[in-house]
Amino acid sequence: MFELVRNLVHQHEQVVPVSMFVALLCLCLVIGHLLEENRWVNESITAIIIGSIAGTVILLLSKGKSSHILRFDEQLFFIYLLPPIIFNAGFQVKKKQFFQNFITIMLFGVIGVFISSAIVTAGSWWLFPMLGFGGLTPREYLAVGTIFSSTDTVCTLQVLHQDENPLLYSLVFGEGVVNDATSVVLFNAIQQLDVSRINGQTFLKLIGDFIYLFSTSTALGVGFGLVTAYLLKTLYFGRHSTVRELAVMVLMAYLSYMLAELLVLSGILTVFFCGILMSHYAWYNVTESSRITTRHIFAMMSFVAETFIFLYVGMDALDMEKWKMTRQSLGTLMASFSTLVFLILLGRAAFVFPLSVVSNYMNRRPNMPTPLTFKHQVVIWWAGLMRGAVSIALAFKQFTFSGVTWDPISAAMITNTIIVVLFTTLVFGFLTKPLILCLLPRVSDTSDGGQGSKSPKEDLTLPLLSSEESATSNVLREKNSLSMLIGRPVYTVHFYWRKFDDKYMRPIFGGPRSSLPEC
Amino acid sequence: MFELVRNLVHQHEQVVPVSMFVALLCLCLVIGHLLEENRWVNESITAIIIGSIAGTVILLLSKGKSSHILRFDEQLFFIYLLPPIIFNAGFQVKKKQFFQNFITIMLFGVIGVFISSAIVTAGSWWLFPMLGFGGLTPREYLAVGTIFSSTDTVCTLQVLHQDENPLLYSLVFGEGVVNDATSVVLFNAIQQLDVSRINGQTFLKLIGDFIYLFSTSTALGVGFGLVTAYLLKTLYFGRHSTVRELAVMVLMAYLSYMLAELLVLSGILTVFFCGILMSHYAWYNVTESSRITTRHIFAMMSFVAETFIFLYVGMDALDMEKWKMTRQSLGTLMASFSTLVFLILLGRAAFVFPLSVVSNYMNRRPNMPTPLTFKHQVVIWWAGLMRGAVSIALAFKQFTFSGVTWDPISAAMITNTIIVVLFTTLVFGFLTKPLILCLLPRVSDTSDGGQGSKSPKEDLTLPLLSSEESATSNVLREKNSLSMLIGRPVYTVHFYWRKFDDKYMRPIFGGPRSSLPEC
Repeated sequence: MFELVRNLVHQHEQVVPVSMFVALLCLCLVIGHLLEENRWVNESITAIIIGSIAGTVILLLSKGKSSHILRFDEQLFFIYLLPPIIFNAGFQVKKKQFFQNFITIMLFGVIGVFISSAIVTAGSWWLFPMLGFGGLTPREYLAVGTIFSSTDTVCTLQVLHQDENPLLYSLVFGEGVVNDATSVVLFNAIQQLDVSRINGQTFLKLIGDFIYLFSTSTALGVGFGLVTAYLLKTLYFGRHSTVRELAVMVLMAYLSYMLAELLVLSGILTVFFCGILMSHYAWYNVTESSRITTRHIFAMMSFVAETFIFLYVGMDALDMEKWKMTRQSLGTLMASFSTLVFLILLGRAAFVFPLSVVSNYMNRRPNMPTPLTFKHQVVIWWAGLMRGAVSIALAFKQFTFSGVTWDPISAAMITNTIIVVLFTTLVFGFLTKPLILCLLPRVSDTSDGGQGSKSPKEDLTLPLLSSEESATSNVLREKNSLSMLIGRPVYTVHFYWRKFDDKYMRPIFGGPRSSLPEC
Repeated sequence: MFELVRNLVHQHEQVVPVSMFVALLCLCLVIGHLLEENRWVNESITAIIIGSIAGTVILLLSKGKSSHILRFDEQLFFIYLLPPIIFNAGFQVKKKQFFQNFITIMLFGVIGVFISSAIVTAGSWWLFPMLGFGGLTPREYLAVGTIFSSTDTVCTLQVLHQDENPLLYSLVFGEGVVNDATSVVLFNAIQQLDVSRINGQTFLKLIGDFIYLFSTSTALGVGFGLVTAYLLKTLYFGRHSTVRELAVMVLMAYLSYMLAELLVLSGILTVFFCGILMSHYAWYNVTESSRITTRHIFAMMSFVAETFIFLYVGMDALDMEKWKMTRQSLGTLMASFSTLVFLILLGRAAFVFPLSVVSNYMNRRPNMPTPLTFKHQVVIWWAGLMRGAVSIALAFKQFTFSGVTWDPISAAMITNTIIVVLFTTLVFGFLTKPLILCLLPRVSDTSDGGQGSKSPKEDLTLPLLSSEESATSNVLREKNSLSMLIGRPVYTVHFYWRKFDDKYMRPIFGGPRSSLPEC
């Protein structure tokens, strides 16, 4: 009898939380679907609200003891939830637009994170002690900067229309991905920094570490993508079973992430570039049904992982243990929270507007209006105000040990992070649509009709093919004038890359020959 | 510095084993693909051999300390690996053939397991103490019976050809699935049994528990399948995004399993019937690309889970800790192992041949040869001799606590189970092809050509549709003679079920109307 009870308790240890999360995920899906037409509320908001309600119920059932049934382990996040999200971003990215706007995206995604985290770090370092909220170490202030510089652009992407604002959409999407990677890489670089002696060299060391991590991680991802493509092309698994080629793609993508983590590189960058390479080469070496399947598998895994994270954030918001442990008055907590939100607004404004000017200067064309108008800049600024999963995960990594913290200051920082994520997702998220409607009025007119008429299948399979084709014609149009070639270096690089790709890469690694004529 | 080291150690705790398993899985895939033409070696054998080699390498690197880097937790198996395997079996099963041979499959899969485990239990109870290997409790002897009655038919299914031996294939496949479910349900029923007083009532109680578990689990699975189908049909998620309908199918299937486990029912049966219902109704309510994707996702997950298990078994075979802990001479261990293999051979023969006679009697047709010849019976007997993942998992559940055991007898039983799985998979697995070639010579002639010409896409999408259509014509042919209807009750039930399905179920839950004319 004892054995039976022991077995039951032991067995239910994992079964109860897993079942509950799966059931809540199903609920999120159904409600998210029903609210699809209502663009004020997006999936993240739905998940956070359902999570909070579930948290309240658990809190009441456990009589005020605990609101969560699963301890947040940043391992769970970094090992299982983040890889599919980032891989999918790389896999589904519109490569042509991504690479055409590469410089602007890098400006926002890399330089922007540096500026924003410098401002958040400096601001919190200066303001927190004045609010009676001190005691953070220099390393922790630096970490706070990166934690609150990682953005979550999902909200804005749901409102922006790719067809009507291709440039804006591409910038917001591209920045979102690069920003995630940069924040994590910068966070890791800070972890390895010797903060006891901060001086000019420290900053140089940080930049050096960052560049090292960035380039090696990218190289690893590219390498993995090419190896997978080569394997799939030479062995042609599909001959015997589609199952095997699918498994190879999924497992190799995951292996690239894990290997990067093992080598203390940035798995996030590795898996992003692995995704790009796989969709550029490997994807063409598999059977037709595997192509459809991979697009959907990766999109689904990414979607479920994202929803899970927001569900968890909502549930964790009511974690009484952490609230009690902060040992701070509500006033101090509110003050530190308001300071952080202010710093986020300021930190983002401090790079979006200046860097847009730089981008406009670089992308200038004679007799043409500037690509990024002031209204566009406001949308870009707004799009990056939401904080999401990466912030939470970095905060847990910095301030807890396997999700547990006993230090009041760390607990306060976790609580702060969760409130910031909740506030920005809910309040800024709600305001996103009205704001964009107001700034870019044309978008709204056709938004509902456009969404309805587009079949989901098209949505997922067309982008890759169509972008490939139009890239060539674009480059050809540009080529007619030598002066434009010189004036717009990105296009030139793109043009020569495509020639190289066609001549050497695609024959080895797979992919259709583009219609670029021989010169 | 201390913090960094702590972070690294903590982070690598999970990263190292996960990366290694993913890398080994990739290796298995590639080698499995290269050996595809060689039918002597199948995926299970490849995975076991690669696992053993990896285990040896780890054993040498750790200087004889340990051969495994991941502790086997039967939770991992029952919560994450088994559900996709069984769900996929239900989802891909050819429903027409499965239900036409339902009675024979149930005879082998349910009654057979009872007979086989009675023989293994009685045999080991009688023989083990004579070999100097005693000390098992009555409950453990009963558990040993079920542990060694669950079969692994993958090996045989790879050699048999569905088109040439539809009846045989369907029986071996169907028995394999029902057998897994029955073993687990029987195992759980034994766990709940009061073994201190074994008498006639105990046996009745066991049968009663078994029937209760079997019927409630099936009902739950059917319910979940119908709810999912209804949700997908009424809400039509695909209107907005295919991702959501995919996620709903995957999550609901998983939820059915978890809920069954939570209610102390048999998740394996629930998820199997959920799979059947989903492929019968829900599958028709999703977009075209989701249909292709689901078939492949489930097949891939099942494949990866299976390969993972065999990889683990191979690695665990060299677990020195367990070998040392058994504290038994190699002679005793060999004797108990040989006894088990003998009992497996005997236990299976004891039901296959008698039950085949029963099946032949029930399926007799005038002026037609008996459906199951003696050669067929030998193939069925042989097909179920291999022991696999379910045996391992049940053994770990019975004899360890979260993969750890300190008891020499339990350690010996785990070691025995692993040797039996290794031996049957490797030796019997190797002999499967020559045996079938010898017994059913026709199969071999076209096996290579047939396999080569069939595209994998056809392989995965056709079965469901074609079997639906032919079912109707079959039933109509039968209907011409009333005497045959009476003589063959299965067909009659099938016919009326299809009428009911067409008239009431499909309009509510989805699926194409069959071409059955109104009577």
